[in-house]
Amino acid sequence: MPSPALRLHGIVPPTVTPLTRDGRLDRPSFVRVIEHLIGGGVHGLFVLGSTSEVVFHDAEARKEIIDLAVKTVGGRLPILVGAVDPTTERVIKLGRMAKAAGADGIVVTAPFYARTSQAEIIDHFRYVRDGVDLPVVAYDIPVCVHVKLERATVSAIARERLAVGLKDSSGDEGSFRYAVMEHAANPDFFVMTGAELTADGAMLMGANGIVPGLANVDPHAYVRLYDAARRGDWAAARAAQEHLCRLFEIVRVGLPRTSVGAAGVGGFKTAMQLLGVISENRMAAPQRSLEGEEIARVAAILRETGLARAGNASAA
Amino acid sequence: MPSPALRLHGIVPPTVTPLTRDGRLDRPSFVRVIEHLIGGGVHGLFVLGSTSEVVFHDAEARKEIIDLAVKTVGGRLPILVGAVDPTTERVIKLGRMAKAAGADGIVVTAPFYARTSQAEIIDHFRYVRDGVDLPVVAYDIPVCVHVKLERATVSAIARERLAVGLKDSSGDEGSFRYAVMEHAANPDFFVMTGAELTADGAMLMGANGIVPGLANVDPHAYVRLYDAARRGDWAAARAAQEHLCRLFEIVRVGLPRTSVGAAGVGGFKTAMQLLGVISENRMAAPQRSLEGEEIARVAAILRETGLARAGNASAA
Amino acid sequence: MPSPALRLHGIVPPTVTPLTRDGRLDRPSFVRVIEHLIGGGVHGLFVLGSTSEVVFHDAEARKEIIDLAVKTVGGRLPILVGAVDPTTERVIKLGRMAKAAGADGIVVTAPFYARTSQAEIIDHFRYVRDGVDLPVVAYDIPVCVHVKLERATVSAIARERLAVGLKDSSGDEGSFRYAVMEHAANPDFFVMTGAELTADGAMLMGANGIVPGLANVDPHAYVRLYDAARRGDWAAARAAQEHLCRLFEIVRVGLPRTSVGAAGVGGFKTAMQLLGVISENRMAAPQRSLEGEEIARVAAILRETGLARAGNASAA
Amino acid sequence: MPSPALRLHGIVPPTVTPLTRDGRLDRPSFVRVIEHLIGGGVHGLFVLGSTSEVVFHDAEARKEIIDLAVKTVGGRLPILVGAVDPTTERVIKLGRMAKAAGADGIVVTAPFYARTSQAEIIDHFRYVRDGVDLPVVAYDIPVCVHVKLERATVSAIARERLAVGLKDSSGDEGSFRYAVMEHAANPDFFVMTGAELTADGAMLMGANGIVPGLANVDPHAYVRLYDAARRGDWAAARAAQEHLCRLFEIVRVGLPRTSVGAAGVGGFKTAMQLLGVISENRMAAPQRSLEGEEIARVAAILRETGLARAGNASAA
Repeated sequence: MPSPALRLHGIVPPTVTPLTRDGRLDRPSFVRVIEHLIGGGVHGLFVLGSTSEVVFHDAEARKEIIDLAVKTVGGRLPILVGAVDPTTERVIKLGRMAKAAGADGIVVTAPFYARTSQAEIIDHFRYVRDGVDLPVVAYDIPVCVHVKLERATVSAIARERLAVGLKDSSGDEGSFRYAVMEHAANPDFFVMTGAELTADGAMLMGANGIVPGLANVDPHAYVRLYDAARRGDWAAARAAQEHLCRLFEIVRVGLPRTSVGAAGVGGFKTAMQLLGVISENRMAAPQRSLEGEEIARVAAILRETGLARAGNASAA
Repeated sequence: MPSPALRLHGIVPPTVTPLTRDGRLDRPSFVRVIEHLIGGGVHGLFVLGSTSEVVFHDAEARKEIIDLAVKTVGGRLPILVGAVDPTTERVIKLGRMAKAAGADGIVVTAPFYARTSQAEIIDHFRYVRDGVDLPVVAYDIPVCVHVKLERATVSAIARERLAVGLKDSSGDEGSFRYAVMEHAANPDFFVMTGAELTADGAMLMGANGIVPGLANVDPHAYVRLYDAARRGDWAAARAAQEHLCRLFEIVRVGLPRTSVGAAGVGGFKTAMQLLGVISENRMAAPQRSLEGEEIARVAAILRETGLARAGNASAA
Repeated sequence: MPSPALRLHGIVPPTVTPLTRDGRLDRPSFVRVIEHLIGGGVHGLFVLGSTSEVVFHDAEARKEIIDLAVKTVGGRLPILVGAVDPTTERVIKLGRMAKAAGADGIVVTAPFYARTSQAEIIDHFRYVRDGVDLPVVAYDIPVCVHVKLERATVSAIARERLAVGLKDSSGDEGSFRYAVMEHAANPDFFVMTGAELTADGAMLMGANGIVPGLANVDPHAYVRLYDAARRGDWAAARAAQEHLCRLFEIVRVGLPRTSVGAAGVGGFKTAMQLLGVISENRMAAPQRSLEGEEIARVAAILRETGLARAGNASAA
Repeated sequence: MPSPALRLHGIVPPTVTPLTRDGRLDRPSFVRVIEHLIGGGVHGLFVLGSTSEVVFHDAEARKEIIDLAVKTVGGRLPILVGAVDPTTERVIKLGRMAKAAGADGIVVTAPFYARTSQAEIIDHFRYVRDGVDLPVVAYDIPVCVHVKLERATVSAIARERLAVGLKDSSGDEGSFRYAVMEHAANPDFFVMTGAELTADGAMLMGANGIVPGLANVDPHAYVRLYDAARRGDWAAARAAQEHLCRLFEIVRVGLPRTSVGAAGVGGFKTAMQLLGVISENRMAAPQRSLEGEEIARVAAILRETGLARAGNASAA
């Protein structure tokens, strides 16, 4: 049984999950996040990815997030849902929940905590494909799962139609390029990058799209980059990318007081709070939220990159 | 609120979870595993550790495992239950389930998938201690969670009484030794090793006990090692350890056809099947089970180490 | 004392070192390598880089290599010489030898074997700058030295004029991009990539040039890529890059019989032998040379990528 | 040709190399180091190991160190000399120099900087054995060379008599134990540990000896540990080890101002200066030497561990 069809392209941001002070889903803020992204011109949404702090949410919380996303989007865009948990059966269960809630596809990593081989990882995708009646996107994210989807593994997944596409957040631009080259003419397998800083280069390679966490803060610039690349205006694509690289400095502001994980998403959330998109920059426990001077530093980066006027961003 | 008291010592095996051919808990086999271990003289049980394929089991399956363990043990030994999931709130939820089911303590790792800092890890243990009314044992297992509980982190956890003990499966014998030295005279914090191959050395350091996956196959030898060490008969402790090192070769038989994870627990399960303790050597999907020549090789190791007569182990 | 000036751009291949069957420098072949590269239109040469098997050559062998390169080039191109050895004083000694032999600049890595900090690495570059009267290029190659030149380290090296440029073989395209952005308008610091597979993307970023080992096999294609990028013809740049990606498959042919190191340079050497540039594909001991079927596979790749007619490449 | 015979046992310290303020060998201090060690009862010396900052010394400096060691020892003990450089031919050259200078054996690591396979590493040892007429000791030190001598590699090296023994500084106590078990009854291959903190455990396993950098500071305690272990007094061995663990805290005093490398040997040198054995605690450039408060902290540790009276250690 081949994976059902889904052909994505363009900018598909992994949405952040805004939280209230007591750590629950901040529903009005989440609606604003989605409208902010749709208003920015993005081409799809990826709910419950690493940027959403997915593993911090249990099944009920995840259901609430998916339901609100599906309802808010109302069919305007395709919605991918991360089915991220350590092992196969649990991923299948999450995938079925996503199907029931109206998702258009699920995003699946290699197993984690357990140490599996590449052959077992291919079997994992086979079981998930057979167990969930939704298109699957393979998610290569070794900084979280500590194993890479090797080039031959991705080839096998595409060849056997275990997935309809790849989101590559591996940082290995060589293997990413081979994936793009192998599938450029394959209508059944799209290839997207999760790399915030080299999206123009990925488009030059022929990638189908970009899944950038930073698009939560500035979706317009990624859409601008994508549109410029599509029409061959590489100078404009590069200019948009360089703006985004300057903006991306917000992910380092929290270091080393917070962890790498908390500093990254925390930087996004802090910028979004300063821009009025969400109400709190709170991170799920035990992650530390940005505070005090850190918030001021994010505000300064927003001003330096033209995303906020002095008054705006310092108001928070 | 300090963690409730629990003072463990001795051999506390992390139990394997026998599965039926269709991947469900093999209840009669699991009862036999527990009786095999108690009959072997062990001092406690650790249910739902890495050796149990814990992350492959969802909450319901875990509940069934705990319930059957509690019922089977019937108070003869203390039972630790692994509350192993990626993040704090989910660990707390699992911990409460373990409490309700009658566990004597829970075993907690650092968060995984998400990348947290040492400070955030300490907070994680603080939240778990506050959220679950059971003694907590800190579980240092970087091969699975990809972060080490640093020496200062373990010291803070003990000092603030966030946990009652440490299970160290880090392979870092230097930091383990410092933990033993620091807490040798601390009645409120025990230190155990998960290292199968250097348990005699750990006892010589003054460790309180050993949590060896291999004890599923030969609990008697670890108990013999422990008893010899306690009475200062180091030659006997070493002899038991060397026997166990020869037996431990079973964990490499599946390589490289299976993953490191599947080869290890799969080696235990295969030996236990050959010895008549469990009915199948099946691993949870997508892990591969040992088969054919691999099973014959495990049988040969059992014979070479005197655990099976020629007839016995080759019967499977 | 700032580092003396040297402004490089374009394609600067790290030359292979052809060896005779008894492991000595094959002088006629090395002359042909250099003429092959100059004939291919490259803009500079990097002698005694990792691709040259630099650490396999002692000081005398290195001197012979530099002397023959300087004599053969005869001032037609600038020559960089790798001063690659574990520690500062030894690097300075090699740098002075390079200066005496007529090099235009030296290429210097972080110390290796010893574990040094970023602050000590900056001091290392300071001592080398002060000790050798030649421009220094910083060489970021963590797969060999096992430490990365962090972004702040490269900034300090450029700001204090400890080096005139960076060769980045780190594979970290994000940090590379920041280096390019920081120095795009800095006439005193050039930034080049060592990444064979994403050179078009590096040029799009604004990099000053490329240092690709694969240029030993096909210098024309890298020059074509560079020229296309310079005139803004990104479709042509990408086409050249994709040809080179297909050709780069030669570096995997030797695996896993040989090591990663031997398979890579061995792939280059084998192709060059098949193309008639060098006489032997021999690697320095204890590395294994490609043989038999492996050579046939390299020949097939050369034919598939149009570098050899059937007759040519299979003659070897 | 089998490696010539050499059967070592006991405490074989890797000597530090004391330096003058201008970075040259401090000859009187080095003589005092050797007498301090011999006076402490050690069983052999290992000159030019990692603790000696071996890679910071060029061939001439190394020759001076070996010559002075050979002359000072005057045959009272066997002298091992590290032939540590990145590749085979250079190691052979250093090995011949060591032979000419009167060494009793050489110590050889896997190649470094270049990435070699286990098969190539075995060939490396074969070439060295054939090229140098001295017994070879295999040196497993992955923190410096970034590859482990795998268990099968060590077995092959012993079986083919490419080396007469192993110095294991890998930190992998499991693989170390298998090496000890495999060779306990092999008169042609000794196995020693480089682990400072678990030497009592290594002796309990049956190791032939210990090569501890910390013995530069307190050789008596390691000899005490070894003698106690040999006579089966494990309580005394453990007591000596625990004293040494407390003393070993000196290797962390320099962190994070200095690197891990400089903090470790720098801690030894600072203690030795405070104890009057050497005149300066200077590290080879670009490593940072301990200073100010750091020296005071080392002095405090010496007092706390009874190695210095208040007056002594604070005099420096």
